[in-house]
Amino acid sequence: MAYNLLKGKKGIIFGALNEMSIAWKVAERAYDEGAELLLTNAPFAIRMGDISTLAGKTKSQVIPCDVTSLEDIENLIKKSIGIFGGKFDFVLHSIGMSPNVRKDIPYDHTNYEYFLKTLDISALSLHKILQTCRNLDAINDWGSVIALSYIAAQRTLDRYNDMADAKAILESIARSFGYIYGKEKNIRINTVSQSPTRTTAGSRIDGFDSLIDFTERMAPLGNATADECADYCITLFSDLTRKVTMQNLFHDGGFSSMGMSEKAIRQYEKSFEDRNNTDFMDFIDTQKFCCKRV
Amino acid sequence: MAYNLLKGKKGIIFGALNEMSIAWKVAERAYDEGAELLLTNAPFAIRMGDISTLAGKTKSQVIPCDVTSLEDIENLIKKSIGIFGGKFDFVLHSIGMSPNVRKDIPYDHTNYEYFLKTLDISALSLHKILQTCRNLDAINDWGSVIALSYIAAQRTLDRYNDMADAKAILESIARSFGYIYGKEKNIRINTVSQSPTRTTAGSRIDGFDSLIDFTERMAPLGNATADECADYCITLFSDLTRKVTMQNLFHDGGFSSMGMSEKAIRQYEKSFEDRNNTDFMDFIDTQKFCCKRV
Amino acid sequence: MAYNLLKGKKGIIFGALNEMSIAWKVAERAYDEGAELLLTNAPFAIRMGDISTLAGKTKSQVIPCDVTSLEDIENLIKKSIGIFGGKFDFVLHSIGMSPNVRKDIPYDHTNYEYFLKTLDISALSLHKILQTCRNLDAINDWGSVIALSYIAAQRTLDRYNDMADAKAILESIARSFGYIYGKEKNIRINTVSQSPTRTTAGSRIDGFDSLIDFTERMAPLGNATADECADYCITLFSDLTRKVTMQNLFHDGGFSSMGMSEKAIRQYEKSFEDRNNTDFMDFIDTQKFCCKRV
Amino acid sequence: MAYNLLKGKKGIIFGALNEMSIAWKVAERAYDEGAELLLTNAPFAIRMGDISTLAGKTKSQVIPCDVTSLEDIENLIKKSIGIFGGKFDFVLHSIGMSPNVRKDIPYDHTNYEYFLKTLDISALSLHKILQTCRNLDAINDWGSVIALSYIAAQRTLDRYNDMADAKAILESIARSFGYIYGKEKNIRINTVSQSPTRTTAGSRIDGFDSLIDFTERMAPLGNATADECADYCITLFSDLTRKVTMQNLFHDGGFSSMGMSEKAIRQYEKSFEDRNNTDFMDFIDTQKFCCKRV
Repeated sequence: MAYNLLKGKKGIIFGALNEMSIAWKVAERAYDEGAELLLTNAPFAIRMGDISTLAGKTKSQVIPCDVTSLEDIENLIKKSIGIFGGKFDFVLHSIGMSPNVRKDIPYDHTNYEYFLKTLDISALSLHKILQTCRNLDAINDWGSVIALSYIAAQRTLDRYNDMADAKAILESIARSFGYIYGKEKNIRINTVSQSPTRTTAGSRIDGFDSLIDFTERMAPLGNATADECADYCITLFSDLTRKVTMQNLFHDGGFSSMGMSEKAIRQYEKSFEDRNNTDFMDFIDTQKFCCKRV
Repeated sequence: MAYNLLKGKKGIIFGALNEMSIAWKVAERAYDEGAELLLTNAPFAIRMGDISTLAGKTKSQVIPCDVTSLEDIENLIKKSIGIFGGKFDFVLHSIGMSPNVRKDIPYDHTNYEYFLKTLDISALSLHKILQTCRNLDAINDWGSVIALSYIAAQRTLDRYNDMADAKAILESIARSFGYIYGKEKNIRINTVSQSPTRTTAGSRIDGFDSLIDFTERMAPLGNATADECADYCITLFSDLTRKVTMQNLFHDGGFSSMGMSEKAIRQYEKSFEDRNNTDFMDFIDTQKFCCKRV
Repeated sequence: MAYNLLKGKKGIIFGALNEMSIAWKVAERAYDEGAELLLTNAPFAIRMGDISTLAGKTKSQVIPCDVTSLEDIENLIKKSIGIFGGKFDFVLHSIGMSPNVRKDIPYDHTNYEYFLKTLDISALSLHKILQTCRNLDAINDWGSVIALSYIAAQRTLDRYNDMADAKAILESIARSFGYIYGKEKNIRINTVSQSPTRTTAGSRIDGFDSLIDFTERMAPLGNATADECADYCITLFSDLTRKVTMQNLFHDGGFSSMGMSEKAIRQYEKSFEDRNNTDFMDFIDTQKFCCKRV
Repeated sequence: MAYNLLKGKKGIIFGALNEMSIAWKVAERAYDEGAELLLTNAPFAIRMGDISTLAGKTKSQVIPCDVTSLEDIENLIKKSIGIFGGKFDFVLHSIGMSPNVRKDIPYDHTNYEYFLKTLDISALSLHKILQTCRNLDAINDWGSVIALSYIAAQRTLDRYNDMADAKAILESIARSFGYIYGKEKNIRINTVSQSPTRTTAGSRIDGFDSLIDFTERMAPLGNATADECADYCITLFSDLTRKVTMQNLFHDGGFSSMGMSEKAIRQYEKSFEDRNNTDFMDFIDTQKFCCKRV
């Protein structure tokens, strides 16, 4: 269902790889809501993915852009202004890559050149896009910028590696630049901290399927899907959320506010069934629940 | 501008007093977006305010309800179901009252009977509404509940008195019940932490005009207005935000993420001008900025 | 090992029931560190528990006090001043009780009279103690007040019931009164958010043993014990932490900053072993980890 | 006053420049508390500062170390083990430098090479130190690591520039590595978020003296000094805080939990005195305080 929420608005979508990508879904929804779009991704991602299909669906042009290159970004923004016939209104940043993760280098044996690369691609890219847009005065007043983040920025997850630190600085950059772009042009910048999301049917990340099962049981509404994330981003691009800025917004079915759900603890308890519970703790009590005893 | 975001949806609005009320604005916007509404407020507030005007504008009925009374709430919900011809989809809780504040009793000389009254009216009322709705199975699956909050729940403001504690527990109740209503019915419950807002042209709160000036200068986008808050609430009632729950969402122009803005510090500095700066500190430096020195 | 950290200091300990209580451990450690103590608990808790043993060990007097009664509190504080021969320096608030929990009334069928009682006993009691101390000018400048809290104040735990809301408002009261007592007397007020703790070998709380197993595996340092909590409280009562105030301090082995640990996910995965994994999700991938694929 | 809290412990202090440095104060206090120390700083900082005086006072050796160089760090850690005759127990990381700040390059015209340099020096240095220590198994079980941070990691301050982002990632690295070092060796890693601190009587940072005046009036206990920070760090190095890890601990007199204090707003109001208040807002009221009206 469409509401014309983005009628007359123009925006750039970074990071659509294939139809499982969140960025892909956002592009489709934004188009449905009346937006005019421009798509971009890294050259190799454009080759590997299926972005031309999306371009067809959304009547958009695709401009390759390596977000670590200021030249590429400047070229992209200038061309966008040309294609749009002027300024645009929103930006989606859905970009993340860690050479350390890709090469299976654990966090405690990190390669620092790669670490800085992770930060450059996954976080400083947002700054580079914003600074270039600002220099070229490319975004309309009251525009909206969203970068996708993850709760690893606040809470450590085994194996998430230097992507956690990248998301932490990404959220900080959103605040820091949100202050500047806000006071000058009323442009808002937020991060959306999305549930772990099934994007492409790719290689298994060790432990990830268990994690997503756990978060599904923890979150009262279950994990948020890419489609739902797209819906949410539409509201944040629309004129109805003009005073929300410098926020990290959890879109996760409630996971971030959960300590323990019944479903998750029941599943966890199954791990002790039919076993000699040598690894299970004895009956215990606690001050926290002392009210029940006395 | 309207988008039909709430077409076919029904909702109850608590707390509209007059046209400066946030709840009033939400009702107007919800009506514009296609919602069918039911209005309620405390009997004395209905007498003092202007809710019949709003009822006329939004083609709504008004049912009085003292939110400390379970009977009143049950009556309200049952009648609502009758009027709506079934379940409804959203609820706005915009209710707050502190007898301690009203009687100018400072926080360190609190009257505990009043303190509990503050909590009962301003926070437990949300629980009572939710528990009654759940008992009567009154809210549709994927419904949305919003309670208005304030940053005093996280950061102490001089003179905000026991309303700070009331907002803290209000946000906690939203999480606690959000877990239950979420896992059972996919109903989401959030609080919106709104900028200090000019509602009625009423008596001056000592220090409040200075505070609102300060927050206006701190927030990159300035304070959020009641109209803007209504816009934001519409998105949270719509189907586009279905996986956002148990969150406290700042709608404040960025204030909550600011440490110090240029505008605010410049104004603050004026307080030392043309005076013998005996109360002003000497030139100083800090480890934080040591990078400049060395 | 003792360091004389509290030499010359005097303090009141609320809530020691028996030797498994955190308050008991704090009293022992404070005594070891040179403090002069006064012990108190509710009359029934004094009857049921073993506080006279603690009084003997720490050469302290015991004064019964129902913390919902202002009279009782005033009597306690006045007598304390008499016994100490003047003002005192620190207070431990380790008090929590929920009639709803005790009577197995679930959160969505809450009894509101009980709910207010939960808040009165578990949270407003802190305010009552502080207000009485302030009225009687009972605490020395640079004194320190600690109330024990739990992460349920921030994140919902199944079955924690209205104690979650009580802890949320307890932490808010610590901030609100911390502002007042801080600016006037430099007295600091903090909450310590402690790991779930084995206190008495009591009846099993359904699901609690699983929870404590889970948190033990999640926290890199494991759950914090009552003894360790006592050590931490000593530092917060000492003169070495004078500028820490209005904070909620997690003492939990790192649990609060964890999203998922290897140990916890490995245990969770066992729940799917040797079963037809109909409830287990297929191999999945995600945008979050897309870096590995491309 | 000393308590022998660090008797038998050994530690490395990074970042003592002169007697106004927080690191300097920590070294002095740690020595007083019985610790054996090793001091280090960048070669140019050693030349410019007065570290040999501190070395004399604390009977410590000084080893220069450029924290961007893994070789330098490895050399430092190996020599430390040699000098200490084995592993050590604690580390203070008090390091921060931004070429962008130093060269007066504003955040919206950032030089990205410098930006990465800021992150490398101010944040990745913590990772490099920890990874090297872990590779060399240099820190004793139950050791403690502290890195100094600032509230700019959470809230944007005008002109704090890329140091805000550096502090955000510093705190993230403390969590990420705290998980690993915690589960393996029970070593805890925390950040202390200190008040703005007068360190050297250096050149004026534009706007900083006003900021420190403001925070002094906002914080109920006033800004925390370097000496007080040193006291606090001692408790975090001691055995009394063994289960505190992966936390960002505010040591700021309560500033971080304040929304508005009476002292700050009174000073702010002076900025409007004796002026034609064209920039001052009219008497206003708000829903937040509506309780006073009705």
